[in-house]
Amino acid sequence: MSSKSPLAPDHFPALHDIEGVTLRIARAQYKQWDRCDLTFAQLCEGTSVAGVTTSNICCSSEVEMTRDNLKKGTARALIVNAGNSNAFTGFRGREAVQLIIDKMTAHLGCDADEVYVSSTGVIGVPLPKDKANAGIDKVIIAAPCSWEEAAATIATTDTFPKGARASAVVGGKTVNLSAIIKGSGMIAPDMATMLGYIFTDAAVKPAFLQQLLSAATRKSFNCITVDSDTSTSDTVLAFATGKAGNAPLAGFDDAGADAFAAALDDVCLQLAHLVVRDGEGASKFIEIAVTGAVSDESAHRVGMAVANSPLVKTAIAGEDANWGRIVMAVGKAGEPADRDKLAIRFADKWVAQAGLAVDSYDEAPVAAHLKGSDISIGVDLGLGDGRATVWTCDLTHGYISINADYRS
Amino acid sequence: MSSKSPLAPDHFPALHDIEGVTLRIARAQYKQWDRCDLTFAQLCEGTSVAGVTTSNICCSSEVEMTRDNLKKGTARALIVNAGNSNAFTGFRGREAVQLIIDKMTAHLGCDADEVYVSSTGVIGVPLPKDKANAGIDKVIIAAPCSWEEAAATIATTDTFPKGARASAVVGGKTVNLSAIIKGSGMIAPDMATMLGYIFTDAAVKPAFLQQLLSAATRKSFNCITVDSDTSTSDTVLAFATGKAGNAPLAGFDDAGADAFAAALDDVCLQLAHLVVRDGEGASKFIEIAVTGAVSDESAHRVGMAVANSPLVKTAIAGEDANWGRIVMAVGKAGEPADRDKLAIRFADKWVAQAGLAVDSYDEAPVAAHLKGSDISIGVDLGLGDGRATVWTCDLTHGYISINADYRS
Repeated sequence: MSSKSPLAPDHFPALHDIEGVTLRIARAQYKQWDRCDLTFAQLCEGTSVAGVTTSNICCSSEVEMTRDNLKKGTARALIVNAGNSNAFTGFRGREAVQLIIDKMTAHLGCDADEVYVSSTGVIGVPLPKDKANAGIDKVIIAAPCSWEEAAATIATTDTFPKGARASAVVGGKTVNLSAIIKGSGMIAPDMATMLGYIFTDAAVKPAFLQQLLSAATRKSFNCITVDSDTSTSDTVLAFATGKAGNAPLAGFDDAGADAFAAALDDVCLQLAHLVVRDGEGASKFIEIAVTGAVSDESAHRVGMAVANSPLVKTAIAGEDANWGRIVMAVGKAGEPADRDKLAIRFADKWVAQAGLAVDSYDEAPVAAHLKGSDISIGVDLGLGDGRATVWTCDLTHGYISINADYRS
Repeated sequence: MSSKSPLAPDHFPALHDIEGVTLRIARAQYKQWDRCDLTFAQLCEGTSVAGVTTSNICCSSEVEMTRDNLKKGTARALIVNAGNSNAFTGFRGREAVQLIIDKMTAHLGCDADEVYVSSTGVIGVPLPKDKANAGIDKVIIAAPCSWEEAAATIATTDTFPKGARASAVVGGKTVNLSAIIKGSGMIAPDMATMLGYIFTDAAVKPAFLQQLLSAATRKSFNCITVDSDTSTSDTVLAFATGKAGNAPLAGFDDAGADAFAAALDDVCLQLAHLVVRDGEGASKFIEIAVTGAVSDESAHRVGMAVANSPLVKTAIAGEDANWGRIVMAVGKAGEPADRDKLAIRFADKWVAQAGLAVDSYDEAPVAAHLKGSDISIGVDLGLGDGRATVWTCDLTHGYISINADYRS
């Protein structure tokens, strides 16, 4: 991994072991690099699965197969290839994925639609079948590895491995969630984004797990952006092994369902924030809280317009309290807004209200806030009760450096 | 002006004098700079006017007043302030504009709604009334100036003055069009963008001039983007003095109307391309031609999704034939597309067809094309007859440098 993001946490968190999940990694050498790039999570029989995938129309074969698999609702294996996304590779790409699935079904004695495959990396180059074949042979006999090793193996341009955990008490049983994610650029989720995997020993029926994951995604992955670009491969999957022994959750009427939903929300938000903290070239983590919109959806779109504005993001990079650019971004969002009711704040300091700068505006505390690494922006539209919070990073020379020569 | 864009034309074009138009410039010192920043175009009685303005909801008072003025359809004066956009300044900003209008109506003996005012620069700082007052006093007694001097005076972060010309024969009379424009960043027009002014000696009724300008805008200003950010002040105005002596044009049935419309289209496209060639930090001029879409509107939205993708723009900056990022951008556009019918080309070389790389793909000629300064990308969706062409520039370290410390 290249030099670590200045926004990275101090260390990888101590994740819970999840009974029913075994992780293994190997070197398939999808790229010329000195690291593992193939991850295999073996899942016990009876594991429920739910997932959300990219809204990008040009999605990969892996994403299409994942969507098909989710109809069944159970999973036995997850394979993640790093270094090649296998997207836009047509029949050649599908052949490589089929080969992996065939080998895994033979190894585990499971059905083809219980094997989940994800790939991440360059678009348009077919995943090499020979490397996938040799890689699978190696990974199934590899010794089990740690969460941190698996998190590092699914990464590409990430500068640090990302993990999150949570717990909940469900029907008198403590259930644990452990999760890993990769993502740094091409981050602008619509239905979902990036490669993220959440494992829990809770017993949860697939349909309810899907309902909870979709709800959590709306408040986490769908509220972040690094560069407004939506990946062709993005996938978030949740696996529930049921080994905690709680009575299986099937709806919000079940004891502990609320606690489990809160834990899942918590893990998803942690993962989403970690991706922003590793945004390509990021030097600032930016929260944008929008209030007073005509609806929550409208507030979300206004927030994303601010979060995706190159002029806002470069101003923050320059630690410049140029709040006029926030006004501009709100105005271009295409959502109901009234210039003369609009108010803008940095941290808890209102800089503009009712259509112009506040009379007593003192830039000193705002400038001090902008020198920090965590920036808080508030936008109040003064129209209704709609609200949303979104997160992004600044736009720096680092983003240009990383992406002007990523493939070469 | 800072160092000239590598994409700038060799020299400012020799624009026609337009009878009925007199240009003057002065120093209002809206910023601490050693240059003129106030432009005054005096227009003869009977001048028709048409205009298009920003779709940004947080528009400036100048834009609101311009929209109101256009109902009248005649103009006697244009004032352009550079260095301060006066946007989001509430009643304080409106007072400064009213002062300018009052002084001009007294000077020219015209109506208030025949005076057009535009301002460009930082958002959120009221235009200082004392400076505007002194500036107007100076500019009305200044000696007439050239088109190039006026083009330089309306500029802000532009690196070169921008002008365009065209001619047409209308009812046996030769009519001329001369036009200037400023714009470099915060460029993502919806209804129109930037500050652009077109002057012609043709006689054209206001309603028809408006119809023609709106049509030209759809094919020019609305087809360019530098950074996806839509300005709060953007305005394009066309003034027709009628001094060429042709029978006034009122519709396409009039002799010469087609020729005049073509000349206006030509000038608008020239102006739009000049703005892209001066895009902040630009090192490449990029044309994206979309064909095979379900409609022209859909093709336009796909083209703009590619043109606004930071990952596509940084790849071009790096001269990297990473066409997978174009696939990604097409797929995220939210428009009808079929991955397995999609084809992508650079210049005349198809690199991907029917959902994967072409069998004979040779990167050498594509790499050579990408080393040039004018890049041509083609996207064929294979679905219908819809087509559109849009233009943008690459995303470089220069954009970050300019915008991370613009205001400070």
